Amino acid sequence: MRQACLALAVLSVCLPVLADEGMWTFDNFPRDSVKSRYGVDIDQPWLDRVRLATVRLEGGCTGSLVSPQGLVLTNHHCVTDCLSRMSTPARDVQAAGFLARTRAEEQRCAAEQASVLVALEDVTAQVIAAVGDGAGPQANRARKAVLTRLEADCEERHRDAGTRQSCEAVTLYGGGQYFIYRYQRYDDVRLVFAPETDIAFFGGDIDNFQFPRWNLDFSLLRLYTGDAPAATPGHLRWRRAGAAAGEPVFVAGHPGSTERLKTVAELRFERNQQLARWLLRAAELRGRYLEFAARGAESARIVQEPLFGLENAFKVRRNQMQVLLDEDFLREREREEQALRGTLAGNARLRPAAGAFDEIGQALATWHTIFDRHLYFERGVALQGELAGYARVLVRAVGEREKPNEQRQREYTDAALPLLEQQVLAPAPVYAELETLRLAFSLEKMVEALGVDDPMVRLALGRVAPRTYAARLVRETKLGDPAFRARLWQGTRAMLEQSGDPLVALALRLEPEALRLRQRHDDEVEAPLAAASERLARARFAVQGKAGYPDATFTLRLSYGAVQGWREAEREITPFTTLEGLYARASGQPPFRLPPRWLRAQDRVNLETRFDFVASTDITGGNSGSPVLDAGGRLVGLIFDGNIHSIGGDYRFDPALNRSVAVHPAVMMLALSDVYGAEPLLREMVIE
Amino acid sequence: MRQACLALAVLSVCLPVLADEGMWTFDNFPRDSVKSRYGVDIDQPWLDRVRLATVRLEGGCTGSLVSPQGLVLTNHHCVTDCLSRMSTPARDVQAAGFLARTRAEEQRCAAEQASVLVALEDVTAQVIAAVGDGAGPQANRARKAVLTRLEADCEERHRDAGTRQSCEAVTLYGGGQYFIYRYQRYDDVRLVFAPETDIAFFGGDIDNFQFPRWNLDFSLLRLYTGDAPAATPGHLRWRRAGAAAGEPVFVAGHPGSTERLKTVAELRFERNQQLARWLLRAAELRGRYLEFAARGAESARIVQEPLFGLENAFKVRRNQMQVLLDEDFLREREREEQALRGTLAGNARLRPAAGAFDEIGQALATWHTIFDRHLYFERGVALQGELAGYARVLVRAVGEREKPNEQRQREYTDAALPLLEQQVLAPAPVYAELETLRLAFSLEKMVEALGVDDPMVRLALGRVAPRTYAARLVRETKLGDPAFRARLWQGTRAMLEQSGDPLVALALRLEPEALRLRQRHDDEVEAPLAAASERLARARFAVQGKAGYPDATFTLRLSYGAVQGWREAEREITPFTTLEGLYARASGQPPFRLPPRWLRAQDRVNLETRFDFVASTDITGGNSGSPVLDAGGRLVGLIFDGNIHSIGGDYRFDPALNRSVAVHPAVMMLALSDVYGAEPLLREMVIE
Repeated sequence: MRQACLALAVLSVCLPVLADEGMWTFDNFPRDSVKSRYGVDIDQPWLDRVRLATVRLEGGCTGSLVSPQGLVLTNHHCVTDCLSRMSTPARDVQAAGFLARTRAEEQRCAAEQASVLVALEDVTAQVIAAVGDGAGPQANRARKAVLTRLEADCEERHRDAGTRQSCEAVTLYGGGQYFIYRYQRYDDVRLVFAPETDIAFFGGDIDNFQFPRWNLDFSLLRLYTGDAPAATPGHLRWRRAGAAAGEPVFVAGHPGSTERLKTVAELRFERNQQLARWLLRAAELRGRYLEFAARGAESARIVQEPLFGLENAFKVRRNQMQVLLDEDFLREREREEQALRGTLAGNARLRPAAGAFDEIGQALATWHTIFDRHLYFERGVALQGELAGYARVLVRAVGEREKPNEQRQREYTDAALPLLEQQVLAPAPVYAELETLRLAFSLEKMVEALGVDDPMVRLALGRVAPRTYAARLVRETKLGDPAFRARLWQGTRAMLEQSGDPLVALALRLEPEALRLRQRHDDEVEAPLAAASERLARARFAVQGKAGYPDATFTLRLSYGAVQGWREAEREITPFTTLEGLYARASGQPPFRLPPRWLRAQDRVNLETRFDFVASTDITGGNSGSPVLDAGGRLVGLIFDGNIHSIGGDYRFDPALNRSVAVHPAVMMLALSDVYGAEPLLREMVIE
Repeated sequence: MRQACLALAVLSVCLPVLADEGMWTFDNFPRDSVKSRYGVDIDQPWLDRVRLATVRLEGGCTGSLVSPQGLVLTNHHCVTDCLSRMSTPARDVQAAGFLARTRAEEQRCAAEQASVLVALEDVTAQVIAAVGDGAGPQANRARKAVLTRLEADCEERHRDAGTRQSCEAVTLYGGGQYFIYRYQRYDDVRLVFAPETDIAFFGGDIDNFQFPRWNLDFSLLRLYTGDAPAATPGHLRWRRAGAAAGEPVFVAGHPGSTERLKTVAELRFERNQQLARWLLRAAELRGRYLEFAARGAESARIVQEPLFGLENAFKVRRNQMQVLLDEDFLREREREEQALRGTLAGNARLRPAAGAFDEIGQALATWHTIFDRHLYFERGVALQGELAGYARVLVRAVGEREKPNEQRQREYTDAALPLLEQQVLAPAPVYAELETLRLAFSLEKMVEALGVDDPMVRLALGRVAPRTYAARLVRETKLGDPAFRARLWQGTRAMLEQSGDPLVALALRLEPEALRLRQRHDDEVEAPLAAASERLARARFAVQGKAGYPDATFTLRLSYGAVQGWREAEREITPFTTLEGLYARASGQPPFRLPPRWLRAQDRVNLETRFDFVASTDITGGNSGSPVLDAGGRLVGLIFDGNIHSIGGDYRFDPALNRSVAVHPAVMMLALSDVYGAEPLLREMVIE
């Protein structure tokens, strides 16, 4: 293996054994490397225990089970959607925080589901057999069909398991491996506790991705089955003192996506087409949100949750853009690629894979020609907002359900529909002014990108100005009513057509072109990209074995590292903050304003209590809410962020600079006991 | 000369003789090339006549004299600042348009000045003698001092010329040449006519930089001397029928800036540092403006003028960014650069100039380290808005005037102060909500860029939130009062300190750091860049003579080309639009809404009247309002825009795609006579 790595020393996938790099699958954790580096042996029972105590929150986060009664620890920022749905002008739960004093007070997060990975099966051979060697649309359709069938078979086999089992196909290494992951699924997730946003997100967007930091970014949920706390397959013990500086730690979670194995052509495409456009749209929308918020307290409350999401994503992508503008980085990657091409060309068996680079370039060139139209009409950038989102999903779902399961788009298979249905039907407040803002914005961007003379733009708008039209649609649609959505969800295409709803009518009008663009993208972009990426992945395996880890896919991974600061320019950043620093930083003005109960607590809490800390573990978005574990598998922290350098981690892990940011168990314990009076919750947990 | 060009065939500066490329100085117009390409002989009397009939509008535009009574033709979008200052909630001149029925009704544009270039003198030898061979801070200071002295000497020599003479040093070819340009200056510029914004800017931001087009983007100003129409050195005749398709035409004007001679390192710096940051700020500010406008009609009126400027600049820079993200373009430029370096290295006399590339790289690396702080504090990005702008200029002006003229910053020399004074003291409405928005935005961006813990950020804000602080400053400052500004302008540093004005106090607080950053930038960035750029320019002269044209510098230039459409993808774009197309495009909804008088005129005007047209002339921003001339020097159009491809012209001229967009004389004549009833103005003009 070392030999293989030397031969391909230019490939960054050979580095992780030296650095704390990698988001490893549980079936391929580098046990030996970790043992030699940290003296810790992560054995199979450890892996199984941790896997069964880690949950995926389908809204896009991770959590961990921390009591035998289904209590889940996650971030505050992972429950803002739930808090936002619960809030009203009279009762702003985001501002005030939430604590259920009894089980009866625990509030359902209507759109949320939670999943525990109970089994994983390698199905690469079956996929290869079904797809064959083709690279065209036919092979692409066959690949999706077999994945859908394997999911359905798996669910069928486990239909009588007692709890609901959900099966998902997982593509790893860009197609080097295929798995079926089986989850125990919980669709009744209730909010138990969340602190005030002022302390959970202390420092706001300004401090986001920064360290030192003082965010009490945690919350507690509870999984229910049949109106009773769920019996889950496992849970974690807490280690109140946390881990010491330098101590090895592990992060289990569901990192969303990374691009470390992408080709340079794909990275340039991402930079020039995707990021460049997205950033400009997001910056403008941010300005609109901020000015909307400035109208008054109620406007500010309404827009808070989408604004947080937008600013967070904006900071991520702005920094990603800076990495991809760094010519030195791209040229180094080009040299690596040249070396790999050389290795492949020099090996008769692998030679055909070298052609994958050119095929990727051609597929991207095709994508370029349809990029904007595909983005606006098929990916829905022309129709933004909650209401417009319902319209698009309802129209698509009704159309897809008319087809056999294996021929459907993968987002609408039988395995995928239950979550989608719950999300569409979950009650949610509708804010007409904000909906108008978002819909007007997206229609205006469509006009800007495609021109007022584009036939589809004309079909969407007629000759009406976008803002006028958006206001009318929001005023007249009935999609804000969950019962209306439920009727359409269960309905037929004819029912949609006869609904008389103007937003549904707009989505129906655009649907044929959206589907046409989808088909072109599937056949002329996705098909060759998937085939090329598969070939490259298998060629890499052939050269070096499975020494590397796959890019993140919002599936369960384990990272390792140590509690450790870093050197920033001339300054040494130490790994822990304490409560004392929080009070020193509080200015009384947002976003540095403390909730009253924290101001009152100042004199009676131990100011040396550890608050947040950093570790060298390799994480990304989706790891929010991940447990940080010690060698004994005990909970010693709660991931909520990365430092600013971690954003570049989407393309390259820099062991000197890349750090995860976590909440320390000591401050969570202190908060629950001394500030929020939540002793009953503490009594549920096992604390050491 | 052909030989020299072949030796350096990779240099794009050799191309213009084949394409309609180049913004040529009047002392180096490629008479022979034009003669051989178009059969037109542009002789010295032609050049002199056109030069003396072209004016620079110091607000950033061009105009042309079109009557013996000082009437100036320019764009509507060049007088929006003037219209905006004249407008009130009760009388929205931007919406309603303006026509002075008598001389007495002509309204002064208080901040505007106009200049006619009456003489130009090459002073390169004097500058070289004063600066010597140095590349350090000392040489840089000597260069600026000699330019200031040459300006002062020139003004002194022409003090008794009757009208005010203003002398400006002009740096061409990045320092290959220095000139003193002497202008006849008019500081009393009055508005005579402007159409409604709905017809002047028909299609708004959506159609901006597009063609086919129907913008009646013209206005008329009049220059005054001592309360009487000015006797100007020349004026143009109109050719009502305009130029035919394919006919050669010429554009005289003041293109603002291009980057065609910049090194690749400078282009990458511009992309990664300047454009990337600017675009994200501008997109967000645009979002804020648009949401501010959505509050109501009066908010929309208030923000219209800054919004237009922002959206226009945004479209330019977004497209510039796309060019600089094009790796093929940058790599081609790198190959050209390598070839030039090779040529220089192979010539003993020129060899030292090859080192300039590395010196530029080092200077940019230094700039990078201070970029944000310099941008926010010295270039004022932290303090935006009219009021904050006054504060910054007043503080700087008082400080600079304490120094001898030759030691001052070049923006504050005796030659520069009169225009600055007029701009600072001109009355202007102050809109507190918009000022708060702009100031809050800029303070927030400062915090975002530099962090809340930056000592200068703390010095600026204390621990107050930016929006709160901005609102307080705008509420409490007296800088909205022109009389207050006039007192401070004439005052001393002590008067500023004792003024008690909080915005002045803020500018004073930041001034020492701003000056320190200025000094570092002057000595460690500007000095080596200027020296390196000078050396490169002279090396190019040595190799190829003056076969090329200098980058644009907002000084008088002449471009040539032909009335000509282009091929867009599969489509042929013809060069003219007609009135008929205007009516077909009008939807009744902004920005495609016609003013009532144009709707009423529909039945009685000739719908075949030519409206806008395109030509292959090479222009850029600053050329707005430029006359398009035929071979006889007659006015056959009015530049108001370029097509979308012209934006890439800042870096490379593409003869197949790059087009100027102009208003046709026929529609201007028709508008004045048949729509606005402005026959007295037509009678002033010489029309053929």
